[in-house]
Amino acid sequence: MPGNSFGYLFRLTTFGESHGKAIGGVIDGCPAGLSIDIDFIQRELDRRKPLYPGSTERKEPDQVEFLSGILNGKTIGTPIGYIVKNLTAQPADYDELSNLYRPSHADYTFEKKYGIPGHSSVGRASGRETVARVVAGAVAKLLLKISDIEINAFVSQVGPIIAETDLSGADLSTAVRAPYGCLDSNIEKQIASLIRDAEAKGDTLGGTVTCRIKGTPPGLGDPVFDKLQADLARAMLSIGSAKAFEYGLGFQAASWKGSEYNDQMTAKDGKVTFLTNHDGGIQGGISNGEDIIFRVGFKPVPSVKMPQSTVNRQGEPAEITIGGRHDTCHIPRLVVIVESMAALVLADHLLRNSLSRTG
Amino acid sequence: MPGNSFGYLFRLTTFGESHGKAIGGVIDGCPAGLSIDIDFIQRELDRRKPLYPGSTERKEPDQVEFLSGILNGKTIGTPIGYIVKNLTAQPADYDELSNLYRPSHADYTFEKKYGIPGHSSVGRASGRETVARVVAGAVAKLLLKISDIEINAFVSQVGPIIAETDLSGADLSTAVRAPYGCLDSNIEKQIASLIRDAEAKGDTLGGTVTCRIKGTPPGLGDPVFDKLQADLARAMLSIGSAKAFEYGLGFQAASWKGSEYNDQMTAKDGKVTFLTNHDGGIQGGISNGEDIIFRVGFKPVPSVKMPQSTVNRQGEPAEITIGGRHDTCHIPRLVVIVESMAALVLADHLLRNSLSRTG
Amino acid sequence: MPGNSFGYLFRLTTFGESHGKAIGGVIDGCPAGLSIDIDFIQRELDRRKPLYPGSTERKEPDQVEFLSGILNGKTIGTPIGYIVKNLTAQPADYDELSNLYRPSHADYTFEKKYGIPGHSSVGRASGRETVARVVAGAVAKLLLKISDIEINAFVSQVGPIIAETDLSGADLSTAVRAPYGCLDSNIEKQIASLIRDAEAKGDTLGGTVTCRIKGTPPGLGDPVFDKLQADLARAMLSIGSAKAFEYGLGFQAASWKGSEYNDQMTAKDGKVTFLTNHDGGIQGGISNGEDIIFRVGFKPVPSVKMPQSTVNRQGEPAEITIGGRHDTCHIPRLVVIVESMAALVLADHLLRNSLSRTG
Amino acid sequence: MPGNSFGYLFRLTTFGESHGKAIGGVIDGCPAGLSIDIDFIQRELDRRKPLYPGSTERKEPDQVEFLSGILNGKTIGTPIGYIVKNLTAQPADYDELSNLYRPSHADYTFEKKYGIPGHSSVGRASGRETVARVVAGAVAKLLLKISDIEINAFVSQVGPIIAETDLSGADLSTAVRAPYGCLDSNIEKQIASLIRDAEAKGDTLGGTVTCRIKGTPPGLGDPVFDKLQADLARAMLSIGSAKAFEYGLGFQAASWKGSEYNDQMTAKDGKVTFLTNHDGGIQGGISNGEDIIFRVGFKPVPSVKMPQSTVNRQGEPAEITIGGRHDTCHIPRLVVIVESMAALVLADHLLRNSLSRTG
Repeated sequence: MPGNSFGYLFRLTTFGESHGKAIGGVIDGCPAGLSIDIDFIQRELDRRKPLYPGSTERKEPDQVEFLSGILNGKTIGTPIGYIVKNLTAQPADYDELSNLYRPSHADYTFEKKYGIPGHSSVGRASGRETVARVVAGAVAKLLLKISDIEINAFVSQVGPIIAETDLSGADLSTAVRAPYGCLDSNIEKQIASLIRDAEAKGDTLGGTVTCRIKGTPPGLGDPVFDKLQADLARAMLSIGSAKAFEYGLGFQAASWKGSEYNDQMTAKDGKVTFLTNHDGGIQGGISNGEDIIFRVGFKPVPSVKMPQSTVNRQGEPAEITIGGRHDTCHIPRLVVIVESMAALVLADHLLRNSLSRTG
Repeated sequence: MPGNSFGYLFRLTTFGESHGKAIGGVIDGCPAGLSIDIDFIQRELDRRKPLYPGSTERKEPDQVEFLSGILNGKTIGTPIGYIVKNLTAQPADYDELSNLYRPSHADYTFEKKYGIPGHSSVGRASGRETVARVVAGAVAKLLLKISDIEINAFVSQVGPIIAETDLSGADLSTAVRAPYGCLDSNIEKQIASLIRDAEAKGDTLGGTVTCRIKGTPPGLGDPVFDKLQADLARAMLSIGSAKAFEYGLGFQAASWKGSEYNDQMTAKDGKVTFLTNHDGGIQGGISNGEDIIFRVGFKPVPSVKMPQSTVNRQGEPAEITIGGRHDTCHIPRLVVIVESMAALVLADHLLRNSLSRTG
Repeated sequence: MPGNSFGYLFRLTTFGESHGKAIGGVIDGCPAGLSIDIDFIQRELDRRKPLYPGSTERKEPDQVEFLSGILNGKTIGTPIGYIVKNLTAQPADYDELSNLYRPSHADYTFEKKYGIPGHSSVGRASGRETVARVVAGAVAKLLLKISDIEINAFVSQVGPIIAETDLSGADLSTAVRAPYGCLDSNIEKQIASLIRDAEAKGDTLGGTVTCRIKGTPPGLGDPVFDKLQADLARAMLSIGSAKAFEYGLGFQAASWKGSEYNDQMTAKDGKVTFLTNHDGGIQGGISNGEDIIFRVGFKPVPSVKMPQSTVNRQGEPAEITIGGRHDTCHIPRLVVIVESMAALVLADHLLRNSLSRTG
Repeated sequence: MPGNSFGYLFRLTTFGESHGKAIGGVIDGCPAGLSIDIDFIQRELDRRKPLYPGSTERKEPDQVEFLSGILNGKTIGTPIGYIVKNLTAQPADYDELSNLYRPSHADYTFEKKYGIPGHSSVGRASGRETVARVVAGAVAKLLLKISDIEINAFVSQVGPIIAETDLSGADLSTAVRAPYGCLDSNIEKQIASLIRDAEAKGDTLGGTVTCRIKGTPPGLGDPVFDKLQADLARAMLSIGSAKAFEYGLGFQAASWKGSEYNDQMTAKDGKVTFLTNHDGGIQGGISNGEDIIFRVGFKPVPSVKMPQSTVNRQGEPAEITIGGRHDTCHIPRLVVIVESMAALVLADHLLRNSLSRTG
């Protein structure tokens, strides 16, 4: 069943297992004439690399190789195919586990679905699959840049440490350079320390990523099933380990009264402004021109280096202790992935919106 | 831009504005031979009717009329077309407002998108559009019933009142009969009182709906973009006023450690069981056979009967007080809509899953 | 399995069986602001009515009723839902045949597919289904008219009578008013006579329809799978009884040499012209600005009023003589259907083409 | 605009320009557990190689490299990504032509569409793109083989030489081994001679390919827009240089009477048989179990080595003589491409059909 494509007009199809030859993708629908800044794309890829203490020891060069769709630095309207080779796969790490289901991993469900034992198809469930998303997200960002749409995410929580941030007007570019993806250097230190402790115990940590999209013109999104927030929610929940999504006031909105919640409006010299942005920049499924703000919650990586109760493929109880190379905390690496998926959604709806009216 | 279809194999396309002639839909992809219990479908439709104090005074009979796809009480493999007529539309209620944007409504964004002034296309953003979803969701439920998949939702929060519920093994059928859709009669009373107070002030209330899906076989969902939770998230965020979605532990998972969070497994007589269900029944995007549990957060209906600051279509500041017929609290009416959208997702993935393997 | 939608950006979904309550459709993706000339749409519907000697005696009023998507005579960007009621269905005509498969009809194949005996789902295979196509095609024509794209088809063959026509510069509007849809009144008379003879014998006749699309700008169509001719071919072969499609020189091109076939070019005052139009207005899957010309071949209606050898549902040999109301020759009624399907393809690609380039 | 995918359930997405690094594809939707015979796939690729006198001098090794989706010789349910490298691209051949539009090529239309001068995006319109189709078609054939569906095509016409063949019961496997893809060695000789003559003059030749699909169970295809013949027609017309498609009696059916045309039925021992197969194995858009037979017409390759009148990019008249490496007659190379596209359609509908009924 086809399930490896994303987007209607700016459409990404991906392939590749963690332990196969390569991860790759095809971007179909990117307009001709877009300047492709390969260095920028490579830098985006580098942002998901495990460079901080507490990230996996699997270090891939992750050089993207474009195979089609670009000539003399510009898109030519044909599909953009690309691959990123897997150079350091160590399937042997997995062999000893191949008879045991790793708890809260996809081993059990993939086997039930595809009928194939062992760590075969489950290599598709690896975080490594997101390499293909980041490349396409970077191309989408280049398209969005023409319309001055800018997307920035940052780590807003790791374990119990929560960064309270007033996003209105904040400069989010600092998060890009922070090893743990935070806006605040104090929070950054606390998180570094927390991750160090967890790593020492072989444990793992979850967290949240918050994202702000600036510069969206009013009109992006469709009224019913393809509401902008619906597509963003799907995009975010399609990221492995994501458990929750909210935009604007999110779950808090449930306890507010309409009279307090509503984003009232005013105008000066014909320019409309909103007194608040509780709706997070989207009303009726369509952007209103305010910042789009959303938050994504992630569970900890399930690969803990501690004994856990599980079951083997013969249906007998067993104990498992997972070795191999894994992140203690993957949240900082998710920042660019959240941005990339948001960029894919926005690029798609930017193209869609050009079709709203005749003439 | 087409944005009014939902689902890949069990596919719903809807149409109709709140103040037009009818709301309708086409279900394409329902297998032949499914018994259609019209009474059940009508009862589902009745569940979204505004029958409790604090719901809108617009009372529509909401009789579904099937036009195709069913013969002698069974589906015949052709598309199922249906309409529900709008009999009590009062466009006059809206005329006086047609020069003002209602705060936190879709008036402003729709006009920016479609270039059409007045309450025209925005009739598509009305909650009335969900009539078409409930009919299709009811058909999906009939299909799921064959595989013993059962979906139950209930009101888990209105304003500050939160129902704490242990869902494992709970009988959720009582919520269907409770006017405010709660499991607990005490909570029900508190909510009734809260809504009464808000109604007296012309204010509105938000809340949350929690949903449990029982009986899902392992294997539903696809690995990458079409993860089961991604499709559920999209489905829920496509409901008007939804602001947030989480499944399993949801946002809480962000603060847990992997060693505590992981759903460890055991087996007895070859039957696999999970010691916990923090993952909410989905791992790697695919159902694991446990209960699928998720929660959706909704903002209050924006139509408050109190003066609000806004802007008119000429871009001048103005004041608006919204009259007409509106819900003080729409959360109880959302229960069946949440179930319906979940049913559409599950029916789609049930059909998809039959294609996973050869032979 | 969903199979009742057509188009990617200008998207039609249809429903309805010949002997059910109504035929209907939903147009999703029509831009807002398009003026809808209801009289024109009704006139298009009238063109497929059986008004000439030799057409079925089933006479339906075929009044289209729009349910959504249009306000004050203009589209508003939301889906356009519509129905055309079936008022003169006579299911009894079919009862006596319900245990026999009509030769070259869909009875046998539908039963094998859907497992349902009798003339149930096969009502979807009726020519009456095209009512929904004509309504949508008429809306598409209105959209194309803004870009000065004009579509005209005519009957170019019935049985052995073939109309040889030089299409370059011909006025095709006369075919609209001719009872049998021909350009030439002499051919029209021969066809009338041929149909009269066949009717007297209870026999039926096939034929071809030729179509010309004027005013297409260069650039419509996509390079690989969605070539303009590929979508036109699919559109035409999706019409019941169609057996063949060719564009430009068509099958004749197989016997030509490249040096004679190629459409050489020249220019005058910077304006490019083609010396010939053997390619029929499409090169590399994309329109070149010349007239798009294609031809569709149709088999005779299979409902002959003569005894035929067949099989009953018990798998025994039997004889069948089909009564009821059927066309002796349906080719003249196909003219507007060919045009409608072409209009759907062109409207779709017109919208697609606006996405080809940045800026 | 995405236009590089084909199929709904067995879904192929391709990429790659003739003069770029590689041609590639992603097959999404192939069920897990299918044995992949790499040698067979490579042999299929070899069938489209230019090995006969009169074919292009560009000789590519065309080794397929699978990057994902296959493990231990079997599909694992994840997308199958693959590439075939372009090793002998000679862009210099094209440089001198880059200011002139080649007649009946895609140069002019691509430039009008994408706004990019030169032979850039037009590399996507090259016959080399079909490499990706053949790989996917071979995988589809392996899937069809499980259900005993067999697809064979052959050259039925080159220029004026037409092979008259009775297909019922014929052994079509000989065409695979014939250099020019014919069934009859006498025809083969005539074609060889014809091509030699054309080559000497720098001219090119068109032709037709006929295809037979054996073993299709009744029930494949959908009733309205996705009729089996509609999808086959689209598949065939999506092949570069294809101008025409017909199935069963095709255009001839237009001149037949219903009483002679209809495929009457009989039965023996409960087994239904058809007395004729004028419908070509499809009725009402759905296969009836008889052989599916269709024919595709192709124009000559437009690259003739003779002076032609054309226009340059400045809009001035010019003369062009095309050099480089091109086929004098590409029809024999199209045999495997026709089969491949037919295999993609059949595999898609085979999967679709499993969803027709409940239980």
